[in-house]
Amino acid sequence: MILYASPGGCSQASHIALVEAGIPYTLVKVGRDKKTDDGRDFNTLNPKGYTPALELDDGTVLTESLVILSYIADMSGRLLAKNGHERWRALEILEFMTTEVHGAFRALFRTDSAEADKDKSRTILAGHFGLLNGVRGERAFLVGEQVTIADTYLFVMLSWAAMMGIALPERLAAYAARMRQMPSVTHALVAEGLA
Amino acid sequence: MILYASPGGCSQASHIALVEAGIPYTLVKVGRDKKTDDGRDFNTLNPKGYTPALELDDGTVLTESLVILSYIADMSGRLLAKNGHERWRALEILEFMTTEVHGAFRALFRTDSAEADKDKSRTILAGHFGLLNGVRGERAFLVGEQVTIADTYLFVMLSWAAMMGIALPERLAAYAARMRQMPSVTHALVAEGLA
Repeated sequence: MILYASPGGCSQASHIALVEAGIPYTLVKVGRDKKTDDGRDFNTLNPKGYTPALELDDGTVLTESLVILSYIADMSGRLLAKNGHERWRALEILEFMTTEVHGAFRALFRTDSAEADKDKSRTILAGHFGLLNGVRGERAFLVGEQVTIADTYLFVMLSWAAMMGIALPERLAAYAARMRQMPSVTHALVAEGLA
Repeated sequence: MILYASPGGCSQASHIALVEAGIPYTLVKVGRDKKTDDGRDFNTLNPKGYTPALELDDGTVLTESLVILSYIADMSGRLLAKNGHERWRALEILEFMTTEVHGAFRALFRTDSAEADKDKSRTILAGHFGLLNGVRGERAFLVGEQVTIADTYLFVMLSWAAMMGIALPERLAAYAARMRQMPSVTHALVAEGLA
């Protein structure tokens, strides 16, 4: 199994999940120029041009974060409740992050965004992180006392928030600091050249 | 089970899926003013303020399209392969639509978007619909010969494209016309006051 990931990108959530789930994988890094670190053109592998992409042993290529994360959970039997309330809550909060939170970061990452659009995004994101803080409440992780695929994605969104100077609710900032100490997260950050 | 839907919104995909799956439900329409058609404030039900929301019989409220659609498929045993290639492909294309395609429509729906941003969105969407057309190929539905939850969402995206004057590949336009004739789609359109 090969994970194609962009260092620091949302693919980091899939990277952390693979490590946390204990699934053997090979990491191939994809640069901004869409070249893989073993010299291939990533666009031929995923015509959408973005990471993460997960190449299965039969050559099938899966894309899209929530789907790759669900696949990792399904395959390992870990990181997501098999059914019931906690399963749907984890997927719901994950979809909120892949659509609304990731979407609101776009204006901040684009080099040609107007300042007014960036300010609007910062306001929206402050609201989103407030909501995520409320959803988590006093629990150890986002939807319960065990780490799930939703936590791996939230960690990346919190890293982006720190990078963009977006103030976080105190409990979420403490959660991010604690996540950063988890062996799976440290491992992924080192492998992506970010630690 | 109560589906909260905005006529013509992305919640229509969940609406069509409920009908197609044969699950009994009550439809509550949510207006642009966030009032439900039975006089309640929708924001108290879903603080995120957007549809779809699915209220289960135990009072639990599920949100986010891909998750509600997956729940409907899980509950009914229909509209999504239980495992294997077709399951992951359907979820993958569904996530592409909820993130990239829906996301690209935002600038077109906002009243304060600059014309340049709208033009950029139209170009992006033309590319996305080209990709979806290629993924479907010559199949009856998006990922195979049976309708899945991915088709219900694609139908809504194609309706939005028509409304926004975005030219569609011929095969996709024909597919949209054929979907519109499906009894589940007709039923949902009538119930939303759109037929």
